[in-house]
Amino acid sequence: MTAKKIYWMGFDLGGTKMLATVFDGSFKPLGLARKKTRGALGAAKGIERVIETANEALAAAGIKPAQLSGIGIGVPGPLNLNTGVVLDTPNLGWKNVKLKKKLQDTFGCPSFLLNDVDAGTYGEYRFGAAKGARCAVGIFPGTGIGGACIYEGKILRGKTGSAMEIGHMQMLPHGPRCGCGQNGCLEALASRLAISRAAAAAAYRGQAPWLAEHIGTDLMDIRSGALADAVENGDKVVEQILRDAAQWLGLGAANVINLLAPDVVVIGGGLAEAMPKLFTEEITTTARQNVMPAFRTTFRVCIAKLGDNAGVLGSAAWASEQVAGGAK
Amino acid sequence: MTAKKIYWMGFDLGGTKMLATVFDGSFKPLGLARKKTRGALGAAKGIERVIETANEALAAAGIKPAQLSGIGIGVPGPLNLNTGVVLDTPNLGWKNVKLKKKLQDTFGCPSFLLNDVDAGTYGEYRFGAAKGARCAVGIFPGTGIGGACIYEGKILRGKTGSAMEIGHMQMLPHGPRCGCGQNGCLEALASRLAISRAAAAAAYRGQAPWLAEHIGTDLMDIRSGALADAVENGDKVVEQILRDAAQWLGLGAANVINLLAPDVVVIGGGLAEAMPKLFTEEITTTARQNVMPAFRTTFRVCIAKLGDNAGVLGSAAWASEQVAGGAK
Repeated sequence: MTAKKIYWMGFDLGGTKMLATVFDGSFKPLGLARKKTRGALGAAKGIERVIETANEALAAAGIKPAQLSGIGIGVPGPLNLNTGVVLDTPNLGWKNVKLKKKLQDTFGCPSFLLNDVDAGTYGEYRFGAAKGARCAVGIFPGTGIGGACIYEGKILRGKTGSAMEIGHMQMLPHGPRCGCGQNGCLEALASRLAISRAAAAAAYRGQAPWLAEHIGTDLMDIRSGALADAVENGDKVVEQILRDAAQWLGLGAANVINLLAPDVVVIGGGLAEAMPKLFTEEITTTARQNVMPAFRTTFRVCIAKLGDNAGVLGSAAWASEQVAGGAK
Repeated sequence: MTAKKIYWMGFDLGGTKMLATVFDGSFKPLGLARKKTRGALGAAKGIERVIETANEALAAAGIKPAQLSGIGIGVPGPLNLNTGVVLDTPNLGWKNVKLKKKLQDTFGCPSFLLNDVDAGTYGEYRFGAAKGARCAVGIFPGTGIGGACIYEGKILRGKTGSAMEIGHMQMLPHGPRCGCGQNGCLEALASRLAISRAAAAAAYRGQAPWLAEHIGTDLMDIRSGALADAVENGDKVVEQILRDAAQWLGLGAANVINLLAPDVVVIGGGLAEAMPKLFTEEITTTARQNVMPAFRTTFRVCIAKLGDNAGVLGSAAWASEQVAGGAK
């Protein structure tokens, strides 16, 4: 008699794209599918696209829905993790969507919602840059700054939703205005968007000639790759803007290290992955200078290793842990 | 046949005084003893005093050492929690003291070191103001500002030592100098000592007439009771200094709430206990204004209830949990 084969699906539902991957019991990928999210089409259409993408990944892996042991899906918050409801996600244009139930009804297996940054950090903790850490903190600078903490194997969370809102630590009284309505949040100082707007201003002022000539001053165009190229091509002011932001991230990391004493701080997202050396250096140096002496040598800072696969790996592995623990 | 009766000892080893209490299996106190710590006498003499105090508490409870199931002892850090060694505690004048082993050898029962603030917060979580919380954060403003977090029944900690150094979150770039060597730490803005020095300056400037006349400008004398009395007797500037500090504590609490999403934030220590209304009001208001909208109604701020008993109760209860979990 052969043991029943085990399959998991990890799903990463982002604001711009979605990715589904089917894994075997050792988290080897067997098949995947991608789609654009197209949040503007509304929730009903969005859920249809999620199910299509999942079905395509199953087809690519040659697996039937009935063979799945569980699905994990990482979604931008706010979520109710207990009921599996997407509460109100501006990035998706969704409101009060019972996503867990919908997936369970459609695919007939246990399904689990995670916050997207929790999923990515859990992926890096299980399979990537933070593998084996007792306590891993994830910091993901993008449009905002996401945060997560895996503490002794568990994702730190709130009573109903996710926690670790690192981007909204207040770093600078009367600092720049943040999307959350406060001033001086880490996100307003060091997100990719904060960097892009500073770089756009530098281009406008004539201090970033490469950026001005090749990309322009439109925030829509000044993305991670453009910033990395500007540095590569000699825009010193853009480099300094990035280093300043990385130092704020290092100071934010120091605060989190003082609280949670992680052994690993993983920096993820397109920006850090495009300039790994700059971000690792500045964040490490600033964090070491600013933590309590007792923590100075107890952590390392590293860049995420798994790229786009962190989310699907993390959510699939989290689903398997939940099923192993008896959750449904 | 009657079940064997269970007894625990909780010990609170502070910089100025020590307190030992013997509890029954329901954590009802049966006997206690106190002594001054007298750190200046050195570690060998200090350990002797700890053992004398423990023996006096046993005698007061009418219990023999062989009847103890375990001892928990809260000590100011830094500690090695795994080996039970007091590493280097300026408040005690101790260095590399194998306190766990010493207690086990002397009393013949399992003994456990805790950080003092962890012990107090755990006491409030088990028996006091934070009873039943899923996640409780403790903030104890005194000479410094201690912090702790009880997350789903466990004390959050580092790999070898304690964590939650809330006092060293950096709140204000180029802010006042802190004892840790950094600038702008919460502790430098809102500890009892930071408040006392601001009040002393106000007295010196003639802006705190009651304080100037009845207490003077010596930091040694401007303690929690003196500050509360000055407010009571109309020193408006002292009151404003206290409210400013409480607002910094509220901002620090907001940062921690954004990260850990606690349901309860307990404020402890002599200062908050002397002016519970002022501290609860200011911290609650500032924290609510500064957390992410999702967390605005998910927490309450309250003042510690157990006073000096929090530490002994918390360390005794923690010892019982450790023994139940198979630790030695």
